[in-house]
Amino acid sequence: MKKYKRYNKKSEYSYTLGAFPTIELLQSDKEIEAVFIDENYKDKEKLIDILNEKKNKTLVIAAFKKESQPVLKNKNHIFLHEISDMGNLGTIMRSMLAFSVKDLVLVGNVADYFNPKVIRASMGAFFKLRISHYENMEEYLRDHKNNLYLFMLSLDEKDSIYRKKVEEPFALVMGNEASGLPNGFEKYGEKVFIPQSKDVDSLNLPIATSIGLYEFRRKI
Amino acid sequence: MKKYKRYNKKSEYSYTLGAFPTIELLQSDKEIEAVFIDENYKDKEKLIDILNEKKNKTLVIAAFKKESQPVLKNKNHIFLHEISDMGNLGTIMRSMLAFSVKDLVLVGNVADYFNPKVIRASMGAFFKLRISHYENMEEYLRDHKNNLYLFMLSLDEKDSIYRKKVEEPFALVMGNEASGLPNGFEKYGEKVFIPQSKDVDSLNLPIATSIGLYEFRRKI
Repeated sequence: MKKYKRYNKKSEYSYTLGAFPTIELLQSDKEIEAVFIDENYKDKEKLIDILNEKKNKTLVIAAFKKESQPVLKNKNHIFLHEISDMGNLGTIMRSMLAFSVKDLVLVGNVADYFNPKVIRASMGAFFKLRISHYENMEEYLRDHKNNLYLFMLSLDEKDSIYRKKVEEPFALVMGNEASGLPNGFEKYGEKVFIPQSKDVDSLNLPIATSIGLYEFRRKI
Repeated sequence: MKKYKRYNKKSEYSYTLGAFPTIELLQSDKEIEAVFIDENYKDKEKLIDILNEKKNKTLVIAAFKKESQPVLKNKNHIFLHEISDMGNLGTIMRSMLAFSVKDLVLVGNVADYFNPKVIRASMGAFFKLRISHYENMEEYLRDHKNNLYLFMLSLDEKDSIYRKKVEEPFALVMGNEASGLPNGFEKYGEKVFIPQSKDVDSLNLPIATSIGLYEFRRKI
């Protein structure tokens, strides 16, 4: 049997940890390299049944090749600029799927989106999304003409998400957890803010993104 | 100098980890036991100034006694039933403050809400909230008559959060991360659900809670 090593950024394969994301992976059309099941896993037989249906004799960690479908043009998407936390990235994937936005654009220096921590936090949503990474804004703009809604602070009431008119295809553009979007990004689209009290610095990133998804879905 | 031990559930004190929540603590009216500042902390002088203003000679970890203000009656609040993840609990606190709901009720067997992990995830919001813990529903109902909105699955369109009429004082009632609210809870109030795709099991708990806060705040 081939040997699988602990995950690192250079690994050819990534892994699902736990039964739930493994079953999601099995139900996706991804090619699966191997599935490891502990003797003590309680639903072992059920999982083996699923594996047999897939005519796959390898017998709850699964390894899969690090490939993803690229983002489609002219579809609504989420655009994350320099996101750094892997748990946040996975949590955002889970919310995207809940609100039926299946395209995810990552720009700049971002967290390794094949890391098992991302996949676990996504609860398997990872396998149902299309994902593209661009080095910078210029590369992104060559491929996409979405209407960009930039989530950032604004003192102008017209930028409130309550009032914002949404035109498709949209992109919700979210900045890094600590630093937000870079200065100068205003020129690419319209500012949006989520009304909130002055008592806190800001909402946490997956929460701001999810409220954006929730509200934009309602508006369209 | 008194010795402080690593935090555990039985500790008399809890701690803030890092400068940001420590400053929030200093700005609250909580009594502070001690503040520990590493020699290398860059804003050491600024922090010492804040400490001197408080006429406190102890000189960025702060220890504080595990006490919190109890929840007020007839105020809107968040009600978490058997929440187990400390990061989730802190993240919910941060969103509560962002949406100006400052009362938090915890019911049943819940995460230790004084744990430094909770306080860190809350980004210091912990110190601006009132918190009460009740062993069970009967104890809670003796103190509070809020209108309970129970976040749970429903197939009835009238339970959609889009349509729900909100009457104050409200309580958003959220169940445990894995198991949700117990059977039989329907009798205490009205069901609410957040419309979402059938592709995912559910939204993550802090996200569902935050969307509830966002939407209820808009409605009132």
